[in-house]
Amino acid sequence: MKTIEAMSYCRALRCRECGKEYPAKRLTVCDSCFAPLDVVYDYDSIELSRQSFESRPRSIWRYSELLPVKEARSVVDIGAGYTPLRRALNLGSQLGLKNLYIKNDSVNPTFSFKDRPASVAISKAIEFGDRVVGCASTGNLAAAVAAHAAKANLDCYVFAPKDIERSKIAQVAAYGAKIIAVRGTYDDANRLAVLASEIYGWNLVNITSRPYYVEGSKTIAFEVAEQLGWRAPDHIIIPIASGALLCAIHRGFSEFDKLGLIGAAGVKVSGAQAEGCAPVANAFKSNNENIIPIEKPKTIATSIAIGDPGDGFYVLKVVRGTGGVVGSVGDGEILESIKLLAKTEGIFTEAAGAVTIGVLRQMVDGGKIDPDETVVCCVTGNGLKTVEHLAPSIAKPIELDPTLDALRSIKG
Amino acid sequence: MKTIEAMSYCRALRCRECGKEYPAKRLTVCDSCFAPLDVVYDYDSIELSRQSFESRPRSIWRYSELLPVKEARSVVDIGAGYTPLRRALNLGSQLGLKNLYIKNDSVNPTFSFKDRPASVAISKAIEFGDRVVGCASTGNLAAAVAAHAAKANLDCYVFAPKDIERSKIAQVAAYGAKIIAVRGTYDDANRLAVLASEIYGWNLVNITSRPYYVEGSKTIAFEVAEQLGWRAPDHIIIPIASGALLCAIHRGFSEFDKLGLIGAAGVKVSGAQAEGCAPVANAFKSNNENIIPIEKPKTIATSIAIGDPGDGFYVLKVVRGTGGVVGSVGDGEILESIKLLAKTEGIFTEAAGAVTIGVLRQMVDGGKIDPDETVVCCVTGNGLKTVEHLAPSIAKPIELDPTLDALRSIKG
Repeated sequence: MKTIEAMSYCRALRCRECGKEYPAKRLTVCDSCFAPLDVVYDYDSIELSRQSFESRPRSIWRYSELLPVKEARSVVDIGAGYTPLRRALNLGSQLGLKNLYIKNDSVNPTFSFKDRPASVAISKAIEFGDRVVGCASTGNLAAAVAAHAAKANLDCYVFAPKDIERSKIAQVAAYGAKIIAVRGTYDDANRLAVLASEIYGWNLVNITSRPYYVEGSKTIAFEVAEQLGWRAPDHIIIPIASGALLCAIHRGFSEFDKLGLIGAAGVKVSGAQAEGCAPVANAFKSNNENIIPIEKPKTIATSIAIGDPGDGFYVLKVVRGTGGVVGSVGDGEILESIKLLAKTEGIFTEAAGAVTIGVLRQMVDGGKIDPDETVVCCVTGNGLKTVEHLAPSIAKPIELDPTLDALRSIKG
Repeated sequence: MKTIEAMSYCRALRCRECGKEYPAKRLTVCDSCFAPLDVVYDYDSIELSRQSFESRPRSIWRYSELLPVKEARSVVDIGAGYTPLRRALNLGSQLGLKNLYIKNDSVNPTFSFKDRPASVAISKAIEFGDRVVGCASTGNLAAAVAAHAAKANLDCYVFAPKDIERSKIAQVAAYGAKIIAVRGTYDDANRLAVLASEIYGWNLVNITSRPYYVEGSKTIAFEVAEQLGWRAPDHIIIPIASGALLCAIHRGFSEFDKLGLIGAAGVKVSGAQAEGCAPVANAFKSNNENIIPIEKPKTIATSIAIGDPGDGFYVLKVVRGTGGVVGSVGDGEILESIKLLAKTEGIFTEAAGAVTIGVLRQMVDGGKIDPDETVVCCVTGNGLKTVEHLAPSIAKPIELDPTLDALRSIKG
């Protein structure tokens, strides 16, 4: 195991709208214009060559200069990130794409990409001296925060809509977190978590540490670039829940570009939603700038069922600015996409991870992707988390007595 | 992604009892004494230094000289192996152990260690020119074989006892395999698979390719040695199902020793079973050489519920020869061990993976482990696969309306 040596070049927080800067303390919005704050780094002082990464740890912490945690001793690293980028030759050839890749985040420590932001946020909580952490979550973030909190010996409260999958609940509870099952949607759970952070002073990371928390997700871009042999893909397709992941990945490519590690000027960024909760896709398709929230999301892709996506506006900016699209797929197509990916590449994703495959198929059908382009689909979570949705759609096992006669029957 | 370059030094198959050698063809037992055959390599010709591994692929195929697949083009690599070895400081300090490590195989491509033997077996099937593959399985091997078969475009049949967890069935079916759900135990499913391989000529890998198949599992030893900085641990604890895994890991350490990569003379090898299916532990405790099969296994650790373990005799030899033990733990203790590992290290394992933690606790309580020893516990599978067993034992979520009053109630 490699140790983490280099540390952060985090310089300040900066308002995404007015550009006002703040010291990198516990702040979340600009006090002038209430827009979100982003972490900015002292890019001019960072000296990173491609070679510098060779002997680094195989987790998001290999990119510690560009993460907002100051001291190595604060880092809570259970192995988030540095997940495989797999060449998808079978799926590519079925779709007529020659250079298709899957970024497989289903094999993270708690089995979704959320380990990335959770690892950063809990490390930052250690730096802030917090004792109680938590989050609002559709399930995946809950597991990621709970596991990192367990490793860091912090108390953990998670706020989730009460109908999340029971496998997710069991996993979160196993890590020792307290689960607040909210009778309502994710947006209700999130609002309650905002109140809880105010009343109890808890660090509910997707709320009270948001500028830091989202930084973890951009490591997907760093890894993809490194794994492609230090270049950006031509096109990357990303699931949209709050939209923070898509914006973070875009920022990741830009940062590597700024540091001269890759040229990322041409990378198209596309987003994928489920039809039953597609506020960003709706705005994209109707050429609107404003997102109309969905009050009652209805989809099996529970991990991305956020009706009022905080970063939706910025997603539209990124997607339109890079020449991408935002698509949406129905639940039936999601199930088909789960099976297509499993059958062609042996990768088993949850419903929310399959929306990128579904949108990719739509783009191929619509002739919107050049067969030679290097395309990356982000598969953000693990199929074992949502088997209850998949089970009704799979072929029933052939049930047999353990006898020779029964055996002969199976091939007619 | 690194490409696989070096190839196998596989020389022959050799009878484990009489030493008779055979060419490395499709054979499983010695025709003189019916004992199992092992793959042997041309160790004298292998030149491997520690440095040779630096630029190799991060999967079991980094050790291709010591795997039985001749040509790189036959290799089906979806990323099995090279899983994290995590220092368990929290769990270690709770147990009073200073150098405890977890080999975390829950983050393999199909979420158990079985991807290792499956990757080797399906690659070998490609070399043999097979069109239909499969296995008998308690669930984890089924997923691993199904995923590798999918990637290799082979038809796949899996034989499993009909009461395996529905998450495992959904996963296997997603990869497109046909599932034969046998009304009986794993041993019944296995016997039916033997018949099927004879009647239909299918390559059911844990049966018809067994000598090759088991080679995949020894890569755990290679990785542990490499990840500890090129040395063997003092003690390693391994779950026992058929016993093949434990024997393979022991062989792995011996091979690295033989090649001068590590000194493995002192490594103690211990085994762990569930009380409801503990034929090897029973024999160990009663000082017997012979294993008395368990007719009706009864444990939540379904992945290791093999009542008549094929390699049980050899497990006893290895364990006794190295100074290890074979222990067993009840279902209650298994559930406690799942939660203990999750709460201390953020690692979520299935029931079968937790038996090693349970047996470790017993050894610590019995004063059988020196606090300074380097101890490795193998965690072989993913907790999401067995949530239905865990769910009844976890704390119930606190259910709330999304209101301020409700929120105030949670802290009394």
